[in-house]
Amino acid sequence: MATDDVTLDFQRPERIGFGEAILCEGKSVEQLATILDRARERGVPLLLTRLSPAQLAALPPGLDHDPISRTAFFGEVKAPAGAPRVAVVAAGTSDAFVTREVVRTLAFHGVPATVIQDVGVAGLWRLLDRLELIKAHPVVVAVAGLDAALPTVLGGLVGSVLIAVPTSTGYGVAQGGHAALHSILSSCAPGVVTLNIDNGYGAACAAVRVLRAIDRRR
Amino acid sequence: MATDDVTLDFQRPERIGFGEAILCEGKSVEQLATILDRARERGVPLLLTRLSPAQLAALPPGLDHDPISRTAFFGEVKAPAGAPRVAVVAAGTSDAFVTREVVRTLAFHGVPATVIQDVGVAGLWRLLDRLELIKAHPVVVAVAGLDAALPTVLGGLVGSVLIAVPTSTGYGVAQGGHAALHSILSSCAPGVVTLNIDNGYGAACAAVRVLRAIDRRR
Amino acid sequence: MATDDVTLDFQRPERIGFGEAILCEGKSVEQLATILDRARERGVPLLLTRLSPAQLAALPPGLDHDPISRTAFFGEVKAPAGAPRVAVVAAGTSDAFVTREVVRTLAFHGVPATVIQDVGVAGLWRLLDRLELIKAHPVVVAVAGLDAALPTVLGGLVGSVLIAVPTSTGYGVAQGGHAALHSILSSCAPGVVTLNIDNGYGAACAAVRVLRAIDRRR
Amino acid sequence: MATDDVTLDFQRPERIGFGEAILCEGKSVEQLATILDRARERGVPLLLTRLSPAQLAALPPGLDHDPISRTAFFGEVKAPAGAPRVAVVAAGTSDAFVTREVVRTLAFHGVPATVIQDVGVAGLWRLLDRLELIKAHPVVVAVAGLDAALPTVLGGLVGSVLIAVPTSTGYGVAQGGHAALHSILSSCAPGVVTLNIDNGYGAACAAVRVLRAIDRRR
Amino acid sequence: MATDDVTLDFQRPERIGFGEAILCEGKSVEQLATILDRARERGVPLLLTRLSPAQLAALPPGLDHDPISRTAFFGEVKAPAGAPRVAVVAAGTSDAFVTREVVRTLAFHGVPATVIQDVGVAGLWRLLDRLELIKAHPVVVAVAGLDAALPTVLGGLVGSVLIAVPTSTGYGVAQGGHAALHSILSSCAPGVVTLNIDNGYGAACAAVRVLRAIDRRR
Amino acid sequence: MATDDVTLDFQRPERIGFGEAILCEGKSVEQLATILDRARERGVPLLLTRLSPAQLAALPPGLDHDPISRTAFFGEVKAPAGAPRVAVVAAGTSDAFVTREVVRTLAFHGVPATVIQDVGVAGLWRLLDRLELIKAHPVVVAVAGLDAALPTVLGGLVGSVLIAVPTSTGYGVAQGGHAALHSILSSCAPGVVTLNIDNGYGAACAAVRVLRAIDRRR
Amino acid sequence: MATDDVTLDFQRPERIGFGEAILCEGKSVEQLATILDRARERGVPLLLTRLSPAQLAALPPGLDHDPISRTAFFGEVKAPAGAPRVAVVAAGTSDAFVTREVVRTLAFHGVPATVIQDVGVAGLWRLLDRLELIKAHPVVVAVAGLDAALPTVLGGLVGSVLIAVPTSTGYGVAQGGHAALHSILSSCAPGVVTLNIDNGYGAACAAVRVLRAIDRRR
Amino acid sequence: MATDDVTLDFQRPERIGFGEAILCEGKSVEQLATILDRARERGVPLLLTRLSPAQLAALPPGLDHDPISRTAFFGEVKAPAGAPRVAVVAAGTSDAFVTREVVRTLAFHGVPATVIQDVGVAGLWRLLDRLELIKAHPVVVAVAGLDAALPTVLGGLVGSVLIAVPTSTGYGVAQGGHAALHSILSSCAPGVVTLNIDNGYGAACAAVRVLRAIDRRR
Repeated sequence: MATDDVTLDFQRPERIGFGEAILCEGKSVEQLATILDRARERGVPLLLTRLSPAQLAALPPGLDHDPISRTAFFGEVKAPAGAPRVAVVAAGTSDAFVTREVVRTLAFHGVPATVIQDVGVAGLWRLLDRLELIKAHPVVVAVAGLDAALPTVLGGLVGSVLIAVPTSTGYGVAQGGHAALHSILSSCAPGVVTLNIDNGYGAACAAVRVLRAIDRRR
Repeated sequence: MATDDVTLDFQRPERIGFGEAILCEGKSVEQLATILDRARERGVPLLLTRLSPAQLAALPPGLDHDPISRTAFFGEVKAPAGAPRVAVVAAGTSDAFVTREVVRTLAFHGVPATVIQDVGVAGLWRLLDRLELIKAHPVVVAVAGLDAALPTVLGGLVGSVLIAVPTSTGYGVAQGGHAALHSILSSCAPGVVTLNIDNGYGAACAAVRVLRAIDRRR
Repeated sequence: MATDDVTLDFQRPERIGFGEAILCEGKSVEQLATILDRARERGVPLLLTRLSPAQLAALPPGLDHDPISRTAFFGEVKAPAGAPRVAVVAAGTSDAFVTREVVRTLAFHGVPATVIQDVGVAGLWRLLDRLELIKAHPVVVAVAGLDAALPTVLGGLVGSVLIAVPTSTGYGVAQGGHAALHSILSSCAPGVVTLNIDNGYGAACAAVRVLRAIDRRR
Repeated sequence: MATDDVTLDFQRPERIGFGEAILCEGKSVEQLATILDRARERGVPLLLTRLSPAQLAALPPGLDHDPISRTAFFGEVKAPAGAPRVAVVAAGTSDAFVTREVVRTLAFHGVPATVIQDVGVAGLWRLLDRLELIKAHPVVVAVAGLDAALPTVLGGLVGSVLIAVPTSTGYGVAQGGHAALHSILSSCAPGVVTLNIDNGYGAACAAVRVLRAIDRRR
Repeated sequence: MATDDVTLDFQRPERIGFGEAILCEGKSVEQLATILDRARERGVPLLLTRLSPAQLAALPPGLDHDPISRTAFFGEVKAPAGAPRVAVVAAGTSDAFVTREVVRTLAFHGVPATVIQDVGVAGLWRLLDRLELIKAHPVVVAVAGLDAALPTVLGGLVGSVLIAVPTSTGYGVAQGGHAALHSILSSCAPGVVTLNIDNGYGAACAAVRVLRAIDRRR
Repeated sequence: MATDDVTLDFQRPERIGFGEAILCEGKSVEQLATILDRARERGVPLLLTRLSPAQLAALPPGLDHDPISRTAFFGEVKAPAGAPRVAVVAAGTSDAFVTREVVRTLAFHGVPATVIQDVGVAGLWRLLDRLELIKAHPVVVAVAGLDAALPTVLGGLVGSVLIAVPTSTGYGVAQGGHAALHSILSSCAPGVVTLNIDNGYGAACAAVRVLRAIDRRR
Repeated sequence: MATDDVTLDFQRPERIGFGEAILCEGKSVEQLATILDRARERGVPLLLTRLSPAQLAALPPGLDHDPISRTAFFGEVKAPAGAPRVAVVAAGTSDAFVTREVVRTLAFHGVPATVIQDVGVAGLWRLLDRLELIKAHPVVVAVAGLDAALPTVLGGLVGSVLIAVPTSTGYGVAQGGHAALHSILSSCAPGVVTLNIDNGYGAACAAVRVLRAIDRRR
Repeated sequence: MATDDVTLDFQRPERIGFGEAILCEGKSVEQLATILDRARERGVPLLLTRLSPAQLAALPPGLDHDPISRTAFFGEVKAPAGAPRVAVVAAGTSDAFVTREVVRTLAFHGVPATVIQDVGVAGLWRLLDRLELIKAHPVVVAVAGLDAALPTVLGGLVGSVLIAVPTSTGYGVAQGGHAALHSILSSCAPGVVTLNIDNGYGAACAAVRVLRAIDRRR
């Protein structure tokens, strides 16, 4: 792999306001090393997602790495500050790998979040007990696998912007997350939007777009 | 179509306790007429399901017909009696064609039912307001299309036998009812069982099996 | 169909800020008539979606009806006012039935929109010529069928909130809109969210949620 | 993973009468350890399902573990007592991992079962020879992979409550269990209900719901 | 459509021993008329399959037409003679359109058949009562829709050549016949072969191949 | 539909060398009329594809219309001239609606073609007899439905550019053309390319791209 | 796993004329050992299919094992004798694992076979050169993956009984063998029958059924 | 595996102008060794594709091997010469395994190529900056995974022959490359052709067919 095979999109922050993120799955260690070199030369931070343990081991040390979400920060990333305006609400503990990817991607963009886990609707009161807390956030990210009933129930109770992420948690017809995705897409709660299965990164970016729209009206 | 092409299963009531039911979809008017003749000779009542208007028009008059469920009773069917032990709970008015098939099949077997409609979980309080009423029934049939979140929510709140029926209501990924079916199969509420899409007949038969198990323990 | 089979969710406006909308597909004319009566008694306006010509003909006259989007307003609906904050960008003229559903649903909620059509990326300059106009809106709804490349291209060029709607336009592998939906879900542009195939109603509701989040920060 | 990321549903037994069950697949060893700690503090027993050898090895010793079904009991679980009212009928020996999950989940709830294996309908007399034994149980759980013809044949011969579980046993079009699931859903035997592929846990819970309905009529 | 756009395969009978058959679905009336003209010139008979009422009405009269199977014979076709060596066994009356296509295609090739209908395995004794009759035939064609359990049960009881045809009869997951096809393909009865959904023509041709193999050994 | 809702791509001929083509399916008669008006003003010819009889009837007379392919030419289109360099080879007469779309699209671009029909590989000699004729063309378009074995056989015999088009001809698993498409994509003949199911238009455009590449090397 | 959990079908040889075969995939080593013990006690030979290296290593030595087909014979199996009446024709060398399973299953039943490999239709002359040899057999088994064009071409050239087996060889849309299966099912060659993907065992059993039908007419 | 189980198609170069290529996936090391021996005897070079590290290690040394594309050249292969007439344009670095297979297959046939990587349309200017370079090539191969919007955008900008290859890069609904394939097939850019997912070999062969058509017109 020659060095000039990589064409990073360093203008992206100015153009649409997102830092450079690298989906590591499917990339060789040589490609990742080249990408890190380019970023270092430019002095731009990177968000690495779906970074495998083998890839991590082969990269230079010093990355800010989170094993649950398989994400890493390369370069200087400022800590999130201010009161959280995003609530990340997850149905189960098995969804933590996605829940954490949402939180880490928000953090990479300087956005703090409130995390509420294990509130699947099969035990409805766990969710209802936290409803006022959730409603206090202008943006809610709902993470759910299996039958993903959580976003529909939330969508009928909360008027905030509601971004759902189906997860691949499950077996049988739920395997791979298609049942969860189709459930969310079929929701009759008005205005619930979704991203690809397990795409916590995308959900966080969508939240950032909304926060920016809120902020630019000032 | 010769008369002897039809081999009805008249021993079924003694064997497993269900009256003879005829799925009319895919049968010619000649076949249906032959079936009715056989039943008349034997003096056994029939439940006709998925009976099209064209089929109905071509059959002899006098059927007890319900247009919403596309069902008809042929021969003498006793009216349901006693306090309802089955609650039929439906998410939306668009599911009425299945809801009614459940109710009619129960009635054909002499079983009364309580019907509670339009309580989809996107407007959660409609369901919670009726929770005590639902819980009073040993068997609950939950009818839902789209994302079919209703059976999961019910399954976490009610300890009764819970039989779900996904419906083909919906469009896009929900078209044909596969999203609803997969949602129910993926439910994390314990012990929610299901039938084929739109199979209200089967759900009622399952309820009859349960009631019979309850009654035979005396 | 008894009158009490309909349980409308009249508390929804207060709870989450959306007017009552009725998906007419799959509902009988009797059910729709009952629903209109209930709304008239309460004095609440209704948005009817996926209203077929046969259903329209059977309902009382006086509905504000749009044939392209198959929507109708029942009751008093205030005209949208103010400068448009939502741009509805459509790839092709064949997508007009969805594009119009977005616009009409926004109008039902009092939200004006800028409509830009026929800018599919196979003729890229049509889109690039309108880029500054599009960027001026905090919310962009992108409507596209077939391979739905439009949202990905837009997502790389525009920092606004970007809500995509796949349409069922197409044949062969594109039939029914699944290729378009999967294309959008797989987009590598950051933070593009989607709804069910042809769900223009949902996209508009999502836009309304964002506008409300913008407005409430005041 | 902080300790407060886990929100167990300890009210579930009172609400719907099921002990707490933990689907271990997709959970980290840290999460499982936290869950066990919580249960120990409360003194409630747990049923662990889909527990991998690696997870088992990392947990504290002393679990009542069954390798075929990949289940474990944590805490005090009373042995099943009384005459079996549930017959678990399995088509093949390859389905044992599901058959055992049914039996173990029943045992966790104190319910004894009669197990009848290797009676697939391609060798019909094996099943017919055991028919009277099967009929003596008010609840029958039928476990079958491949083409899952067993539940249909049973459903035409037995009037008991009939709960089917498709298994993922098979290759080619049967791979993953979808052929078995669709076969069961399409059954023309009246009132056969099903659960997700390999969901022996759910089938046992459904049986428990039925037994409870039988018992509460006293 | 120019006359020379049709290239019939008149050498087929000599090459592989089958008369010319025309799948009418998807052909225009002009194409069919040209094909009939060619056959008339050559003096070869034709089997027309999936002939719609509209196509039939537009063709010259005098075809030997069967409405249930939508087949017609064009030209001189000898009546089947001798004792039947093929049993056509059908699960339900709704499968008659395929059952008849088998019988008619056999007849076109001079092969008589025994037809046994309405013996689906949900009423097992109907089938067992006819077992000796079925076994007396060296070739058995089993026609079944829905969950198509019939071929598996037959395959375990009968040593004859067993050719299954799944039918498109059914709704929900059975719609279009895929559940039936997958069920047959997954059968654990040894040596059950299948054809495409609703392909009664092909099943009859396969039976003819077997009979010819039997006859040529003399 | 306002006139300015249509944004035709009149620069396309200069940019990539294709005339404007309009996919009529999914467009309203009003939209089509607007498009024709725009083209008339500009003096550019149009190719209309998938034009329904109802749409045709509602448009102004004078279109050069072909009913089999459902195509029409609007405006002045020069007749194809010169020796054919494209052979269009079709497996069956039922594929004529696609075969003709290829021929008509070529004609719209001034390209003559040799058409060879009804040479499916189940009657192999029909194809082998025409092999030298086919080989004489630098570009071969192979049109086939059902199992689409024709492109694979051709691909092993012919060194020309080989463009396949799967058709939706067929029933059961072949319904809609997916079996044909997957068969072509899986072909082990080297370098066979394909387009969407029934996309005769696209195949012709691909052929035009090749002819242009041949011609520009002069 | 208790010994009485295994219920072998030792009457199968008398009933339908097949020896006992054990699908090893999905069975534990304990289950396999129990099955071998039972067979040893009874003195009946077994055919083991899909036997993994790990399973083989754990079983007692002395099995007649073939690594390519993953089959083994347990007990006394007579060598095939006489002139081959079955030709096994395979498209590619990658299909050898299935081709060998056909040959080994035939051998287990005492049936010799002629094997012809690597004659895929992309190099058509390889097949045509062997046509007379193939035609000399009353039964032909065609093994093919990818687009599986071989059975269609053979079906148009050979009048023998033609049994196809799709294989899982391939990638992309061919992965898992579904493209091959659908291609065979869609074949327009008359009377080509198929089995499940990779089911060489079943194809051999079907051939045995045909040979038995031939032999019993004496 | 006997030596005569391999039937290589050594006439292919004369017949259709392609060297022999061996898809190694699914072949045993013994089969590959036999194939190499045959080629050595004949003195013909081979292109090995999808060669696993384990297979490579077991073959004799001296192969010209490329790890990224998993290809190897066996025997004498002439280096590509002349100005590149094929541009290989790839959306991302993760697609390099396919991009390289295209380049290596071209090289095996003596065809040089220009490679342009990492120009996905989410960062549109990267592509537009290279547009003139791309346009200078008569053949363009576009390699793209995820939503594969690149071929559509290119197809609207470039008049060259445009051959797309979808890749299996992606997760969720993009997993396995089906979303990319369907996106390309649904493209509204005229005349974009495609091959199977990850089939870089086939794309290069298609390019070779085009170059040969260009060259033979001299």
